[in-house]
Parts: sequence; C-alpha cells; structure tokens
Amino acid sequence: MEKSALQIARAAYQPKLPTALQGAVKAVEGAATQSVGNQEEIKALFPNTYGLPVVEFQSAESENHDPINVGIILSGGQAPGGHNVISGLYDGVKSLNKNSKLYGFLMGPGGLVDHKYVEFTDAFIDEYRNTGGFDIIGSGRTKLEKEEQFESGIQILRELGIQALVIIGGDDSNTNACVLAEYYAAKQYGVQVIGCPKTIDGDLKNEQIETSFGFDTACKTYSELIGNIQRDCNSARKYWHFIKLMGRSASHIALECALQTQPNVCLISEEIEAKQQSLDDVVTYIAQAVAMRAADGNNFGTVLIPEGLIEFIPAIKKLISQLNEILTDPATGEAREFESADAQIAFVKNNTSADNLAVLESLPADVARQLCLDRDPHGNVQVSLIETEKLLSRMVADKLDQWKQEGKFVGKFAAQHHFFGYEGRCAAPSNYDADYCYSLGFNASRLIATGKTGYMSIIKNTTAPAAEWIAGGVPITMMMNIERRNGANKPVIRKALVELDGAPFKFFAGKRDEWARQTAYIYPGPIQYFGPTEVCDQCTRTLALEQAK
Amino acid sequence: MEKSALQIARAAYQPKLPTALQGAVKAVEGAATQSVGNQEEIKALFPNTYGLPVVEFQSAESENHDPINVGIILSGGQAPGGHNVISGLYDGVKSLNKNSKLYGFLMGPGGLVDHKYVEFTDAFIDEYRNTGGFDIIGSGRTKLEKEEQFESGIQILRELGIQALVIIGGDDSNTNACVLAEYYAAKQYGVQVIGCPKTIDGDLKNEQIETSFGFDTACKTYSELIGNIQRDCNSARKYWHFIKLMGRSASHIALECALQTQPNVCLISEEIEAKQQSLDDVVTYIAQAVAMRAADGNNFGTVLIPEGLIEFIPAIKKLISQLNEILTDPATGEAREFESADAQIAFVKNNTSADNLAVLESLPADVARQLCLDRDPHGNVQVSLIETEKLLSRMVADKLDQWKQEGKFVGKFAAQHHFFGYEGRCAAPSNYDADYCYSLGFNASRLIATGKTGYMSIIKNTTAPAAEWIAGGVPITMMMNIERRNGANKPVIRKALVELDGAPFKFFAGKRDEWARQTAYIYPGPIQYFGPTEVCDQCTRTLALEQAK
Repeated sequence: MEKSALQIARAAYQPKLPTALQGAVKAVEGAATQSVGNQEEIKALFPNTYGLPVVEFQSAESENHDPINVGIILSGGQAPGGHNVISGLYDGVKSLNKNSKLYGFLMGPGGLVDHKYVEFTDAFIDEYRNTGGFDIIGSGRTKLEKEEQFESGIQILRELGIQALVIIGGDDSNTNACVLAEYYAAKQYGVQVIGCPKTIDGDLKNEQIETSFGFDTACKTYSELIGNIQRDCNSARKYWHFIKLMGRSASHIALECALQTQPNVCLISEEIEAKQQSLDDVVTYIAQAVAMRAADGNNFGTVLIPEGLIEFIPAIKKLISQLNEILTDPATGEAREFESADAQIAFVKNNTSADNLAVLESLPADVARQLCLDRDPHGNVQVSLIETEKLLSRMVADKLDQWKQEGKFVGKFAAQHHFFGYEGRCAAPSNYDADYCYSLGFNASRLIATGKTGYMSIIKNTTAPAAEWIAGGVPITMMMNIERRNGANKPVIRKALVELDGAPFKFFAGKRDEWARQTAYIYPGPIQYFGPTEVCDQCTRTLALEQAK
Repeated sequence: MEKSALQIARAAYQPKLPTALQGAVKAVEGAATQSVGNQEEIKALFPNTYGLPVVEFQSAESENHDPINVGIILSGGQAPGGHNVISGLYDGVKSLNKNSKLYGFLMGPGGLVDHKYVEFTDAFIDEYRNTGGFDIIGSGRTKLEKEEQFESGIQILRELGIQALVIIGGDDSNTNACVLAEYYAAKQYGVQVIGCPKTIDGDLKNEQIETSFGFDTACKTYSELIGNIQRDCNSARKYWHFIKLMGRSASHIALECALQTQPNVCLISEEIEAKQQSLDDVVTYIAQAVAMRAADGNNFGTVLIPEGLIEFIPAIKKLISQLNEILTDPATGEAREFESADAQIAFVKNNTSADNLAVLESLPADVARQLCLDRDPHGNVQVSLIETEKLLSRMVADKLDQWKQEGKFVGKFAAQHHFFGYEGRCAAPSNYDADYCYSLGFNASRLIATGKTGYMSIIKNTTAPAAEWIAGGVPITMMMNIERRNGANKPVIRKALVELDGAPFKFFAGKRDEWARQTAYIYPGPIQYFGPTEVCDQCTRTLALEQAK
C-alpha cells in the first residue's frame, strides 16, 4: 500500500488514553439502572441484560489475565476513527494477555452470519492506526435481528473460541447488539456483546454518551470546506452558496458547522418542525436574508441545509405520507402499477386530500412530478432524490423575482450548490477522534475482561485533557424506550435530535440575526495534527457548549 | 473579524524568502529577448517593452532608496496566496523606504478605472497574512484593454503619486498588464507595470514561469477530498464516484490530483483531443475499467474529470461550433429568436450537417435539448451548464446495461457525483504557496526599485529549499505570440496545456492501467502547516516531475 507523507507521519501518533486505562483496572459499579422509557416492557424483553449498573473503571493492582479471543464488527455508514477503535481494542486485549486474539468480521454484520473474517496481527493493525475509513475489514448494513443469524454467528464464534463480540455502530446497531447480548445470555452461550457509539450524524448521544465518534472529524472537514467557500464568496461577492450537509434525521452537523463557520443562514430541521413551518416559510426566511444583505450592497452569502430538511416540514411530511399510502396496493403491500406516467399523476391528483394537493402544486413542476413518479422498491417516495439545495435556491429566486417587481428587492441573486457527505465520512480522524476512538476500543477490552455484556463502551469528560477522561460502561437497555418502527413496537435507543432548549442551539439562535446581516464568517481551515494544542486538540463547539452548562 | 484557532496561529508564520531577496539587490541582466512566436508583429505592437533582457537579482551593498508609492490589483478568479503577494509587496516597498505607500484598487481592474482604492497599513496587512481568498480588496473580471480605461487609471495614479502598478492575474490579465505598460511607456507617463502569475488552473507556465501560484494549494485541497472519497469508496465498496474538477481549458488540476491520489480513471482533455476520441470512446474507456474491476469483485472506483472535457472532444467541439454559428443571426450578430422551443429544435435539425446531427442525436435526449436551447447572452451554447460528471456516468450505465445483456459485464454499477472548485480556490495557502507568493510580491518591489516595466515577477528553482530560490523578472513580451481570439488577431501569452510528452503525463500514462485495475489509492489528507517538512513543504508532483527531467 503506497502512502502519502501525512499517512506515514501520522502512523507514529500514539493516541492518548485516560489515566484509569493506563494499567490494570477495577470496575466500580453504581446502582441498578432503569431504561429511559417503557421500563416494564424493556425489562420483559431483556430479562438478562436489564437493570445492570453503570460501571466506571479505576486503576487497580495489576493481575494476570487468561488470553481472550474477541471479534469485532463495523456496522453501517463510515465514520472517522473506526480503525482506532479496532487498534485500541487490539492493544487492549494484548495488554491483558499477549496471547489474546482479535478477529474482524468482514463487510459488516454479514461477516458474522456468513463466517467471513480475518485475524489481526501487529503488522496488519499498524497499517491502519490513525487512518480514516472502514476499509480495514469493510462495513455493511445487514441488520442482526433474527435468531437464525444469531445461531449462525455462534457457530463461527465457537469455532474461533471467541468469548466476546464488539459491535461498532449507530443507534440501530447498538440496539441490535443488545438484542444479541440478551439472546446469547439467555441461551447461556458464554459470549459477551459490547457496543461502541459511532455516527457522524451526532444523533447517538444522551446522559451517558457525550458524543458519537466521527462527528468531530466529519464536522471539521465540512467546516474547512464551508470556510473556504465563504472566503471565496466574500472575495468574488457575487454568489449565494447553498450547501447541503449529510444527515437524514438530526441537524447536529449543520448546527456544528454553523457554530464553526458563522454562515449567513443555517436551517435546523428540528426547529422548522417545532414551529410547524411550511416550505414557503423557509423560502421566505432565506429570501429575507438575501434581500437584507442586498440592501447593504452584499449580493452574496451562504446557506447551510441539513439533508433531511424536506421531511421535517410538517406539510410535506404529511403529503409524502399520503403519497406512500395511496401509491401502495393494500392487497399486496407493493407499489401500485400504472399504464403510464400520466395515469399515475392523474391517480395521485384524484386521490390526494385537498390540502396535500395544494402543497404538491406549490412545488416546482419537475419536483412535484418526481415526487409522484419515483418510487423505491417498497413503493415509497424517494425523498433522497430531491436536491433540496437546488429546490430551495430556485424557489428563493422566484420569490425574489416577485419582490423585485413589487420593489421590495433591489439586488442580484445567483446561486451555486454543494453537497458534502462522502468528503468527510472517511477523513483521517482528528486528534480528538483518534484519542476518543482508541480509548473506546481499549476500554471495550476492560468491559470484556470484567465480564460485562449488553454494555456500551463509554468515555466521558472528553472536554478535559485525555488523562482526565472517565472510562466505563453503560447497560444499553438503560438508553432504550419503545418506539413504533415499520408498523411495529420495538425497543430502540432514543435518537438524539437537536434540542431547541439546548446550549448549542440557543447560542446559535442568539447570534444568527447578526450573522445573517453582517459578514461574520470564520475560516476554520483544514484539520491540523502537529501544531499548537488550541489548533489541534479542540472538541466540537457543540460538545463544548453542552458541557459548559 | 472573529478568527479560528488556525487563523490566529497561522498569522504568525513568517514566509521564507530567497537569500537574494533578504537584503539589497542588484539586477543582473541577460541578453535581449525574443517573443516565443510572431516576433515581428509582437515587436511592432510593443516598441517600448519588447526585447528587454531577463533579469536575475543578486545580493548587493545596501543603499538608500526614496519612498515609492505602489498600487496593486487582483484580477480574475481567486487563487490561494493572493494575500501573501500583497503582504510580500508591502514588506518589500517598506524595506526600500519606510515612507513608501501601498494602495489596493478595489474589486479588480475596475477599481483603477473607477478610482476605488484603499491604502494599506501595518494593521490592515497583518489581518490577512497567510490567509486564503482575495477578500482583502476583492477581485473582478473587468478587462483593462481600452485607452479610455488607461487614461482614467493614470488620473488616480497621478493623484496618489503612484509610480508602479502590480497586476496579479492569469494569462489574459498579464497580457493586458503588458499592453498597459507599453501604453504608459509610450506616453511617458512614468508609471511602471509589473505582472504576477496567478491561476489555480496551472496553465500559466513556460520556460520562465515554473508554476502559477494557487495551483499547489488548490490541488492539495481537492486531493484531500478525493482521498477521503476514495477511502469511503474502498470501505463501502458499492459506488463509483465521478469527480469533476474545476478548470475550463487545461487538465493540469485533474492530472496533479491523479498523481497525488491514484484514482482508477483520470481523463485528460488534451489526450482525448490529440487522439481524436469521440464521446463514445471516452464512455467505453470508463465502462471497460468498471467491467474489469467488477470481474475482480470490485464494484467501486473513482473517475476524475476535468471540467472542460466536453469541449476537447473533437466531434462535440465541431457540433458546438456549428450550433453557435447557425443560432446566431448573421445580420445582427445576436442570438436568433424562435417562436417556440420546438421551432428552435426543428431549425437546428434542418440546418446542422449530417455528421454533427449524428453526434447531437447520440447524446441523452435532455442534454441534446439543452445544447440546442440554452444560450448565453452572446448566443453561444452554454457548455458549462452541462453536468459532465452526470452525463458520463449515465452513458456508462447505459453501456454497461447493454454489455450485461451481451454477457460482457457481470457486476453492479451505482454512481455518486461531485464537483470541486469553490472548495479550493480560497483555501489558506500551503507553505509552498505562502512562501512562493510572498516572494513573488516582495520580488515585485525589487523590479519596481530597479525601474522595470512590462515585466513579470518570477521566482524559480522552487523545488529546492526557499533560500536557494532564484528571484528576478521576465519581459512579458517574451512569453507572447499572436492568436486568433473572438475573430481578431491578438498578442497573448500562450496558454500551457498538458503536454503529452511531458514528464507528469508520461508518469501517469505509465501507471494508469495498474491504478485502473488495482485499488492503489493514496490518501493525502489535509494540508498541514506545522508538521515535519516532508509533510508540510512539498511542491506539487507535477512540478517535481517537470523539474526532475
């Protein structure tokens, strides 16, 4: 593998560990826990893994440990730092006993089911230390949910003498990790299951989890690009840049990037939903910022848009819901078939409620057509095909044309469009993510060594220097409640959306009018690994604001 | 101005200067020069600035210098390092005499014509040292070509006591700088004009200019993103990423990024033109790479596409040329008007030659329609509106579908699209560009002090440590020839396209089959400012290969 100069230099970085993990540990256990909601139902579903105590590790006398064999799985979308979780876990199990082994299952949870795996060695791990990506073993989106998968898994785990499995994933994958932990515990299979909180979206966090890994690096990479675009925007002074940021549900990425770069406009889906705004409200809000800046002679600006925005607008959510319903054949549960596109559109118009039809007809014609026609294999509207950044800029242009005729807008409006996602999911981890992930992985080995299952590896107090970080574990059931998913009640980890009364949003809301009118751009620049600590070792603004409370 | 931690830390960076510029200089003059082509015509057009010698600066005894007032203009598209040219020039004129003054004309050459300017101070300059962007005074695309502009300019230059003007720009702007130098010399106005080679496109280089500034930083920024995408691509293993890179004429950016990241496919417009390839040839070439990798089980990859590609395909160039001709009314020189889109399309079909019509009809229907209908204000086809990355991936998908039916393709093909331009034009300059630009600006003060006009500021030997860089000046006429532009013969600096017998292309051509089949990705990571020299201080691969010859 040919490497860049930075890859070579960065390979030598030794990630920092909390002091408590730098030698042998003892697990200090708290009181029994409860799930965040639906306690009785969760308890009934997880009789063996419910109510366990929160665990915190403290330094202890070193003691001999038998070798252990551990397996690891990368589940779902890529996030910077996954390789460091693995190298931390590898170093952790080797520190327990040098004859311990670590196996990686290939291309996600499917690797466990299909018995595809590799055994890690020093040389193999060293190739991937402090690098981005999940390419060390690949990832996949197979969901571990079925008994036959669990049974297929136990065969290979037994064959390899694996006593514990670490699953790196988001809210769904960690929920499934807990289901698996419960199943193996109930069957007394003697295999522990530990989860690790991953997702660039930042929506896996709660009282126990400060942040999901990868969020820091991804947001810093996007903010580098937004800052560069803002500098261009402020130099050329002739374009509005509409920048969409990956993340289908929560707007944490957009909010964090706004805190780092101070754009003129940043839309927060959760606020739009809470205020019951219409698409026209959103368009009007942007157009007002454009008009206000134009009045000052500034015919340029930036708009940050969370990818999932469109589905948070209540009227559009309702429309999509009805489209999904009427275009599915109730008899088969599959997409209805039509003789022609025109026939399909006519069917939609005749079967949509008046208010939904009005919303549909308020959209630009091609977007309305696309919503009516394009379906995924399950017959659902393909919302992800809508280029929200272009839709918004076109509608803003139309509104400004109208205002111009009315004498309410005197400037010029021209737009450029960007969508950032893949650019940041596999960036090499920042120092924060490199240290955090290595600690999460190393810590997982201690949860295994102390016999835990159904726990998530947790590192807290990460706004302090790494030596002071707090390491431990939290029973996954503690973070669960019951939610309706695909028409059935399921135990799930509650997804953390942007809280409108949280410190990050409140800070943003207090500043945004100033940022809209003035040109208050900040240019974060690229992630630095070797410079002064205030440049290289800062956490996200979101986390700093949350922890400052 | 609120600043990021990196901006604050980076402000303290002192750019390196060639040893020759670290004190007083003497100008060592070479022999008289000739233009690269059309010597007699160029000489006739530039009687006062033709044939001047190349100048190299060497250290000399220091001597007192009268204060001088200098003006500076940023012309055309943004490029990383412009602020350092200005800070270098500022420090340079102040080092000649602390009472010297530097003025900046606002929003490009228009600022000279319209008498819009600022005077720089220490505090003002310090805010912008080592930062990206042109926002210090803004840039613009007004062309300085007309006598009335020159005469308007001399008024404000005289009012401010300005003896010399520095114009930072690409090939066109430097040509115009020379025309202005010649005009002021002929009129004996006593104002010198000096050019500086800027453009991220990398197409302003020749025997005298090693590289244009900004190319290094922009390519490193794009390569960071391409590397991140490749890591994602190699982790998820399910997408082909089609990545278009800014640059309408030369393919230097795509080639440099390919050298830095080793993608599976990189298209070079100059090669496609030289080999007289059709669009189908290009599509077939990509589809073959996809099919070959699919046969190895690798249904993923990356394709780099220069923005200007489509106009380099000879058949399409010919088609566009005819469309431009037939859709312009010869009587008025303006776009023909039609009653309807259908009437326009019918007119095109009836008036296009059979071979051009065949090319038009080989394009996807919506692209063909767009080519026939969308015109710029001069009646020309709007080639830049064609999303080449999407056009290519759709045509590749169609070809693979056909091959699948014929049993020649057994894999899956799904594409993602990216276009990088604004993300890199205003990045904070790399150490290379920070040093190079500061030296170019500082050096310009020495050209002024030694009485030169019609010269470009030149720094050579930049693959060596900065202390060994060679500073001097080259008469702009030396780089000129006569070319046909907009229907008239004009003296211009020859644009440097990718040379197919040059070292960078030959290196690439020798490796690309291996890169296509294998997954040989390199992940350059973000630009570093504080780390080891092999990480922070490297020039582009293009320049290293060119200078190694």
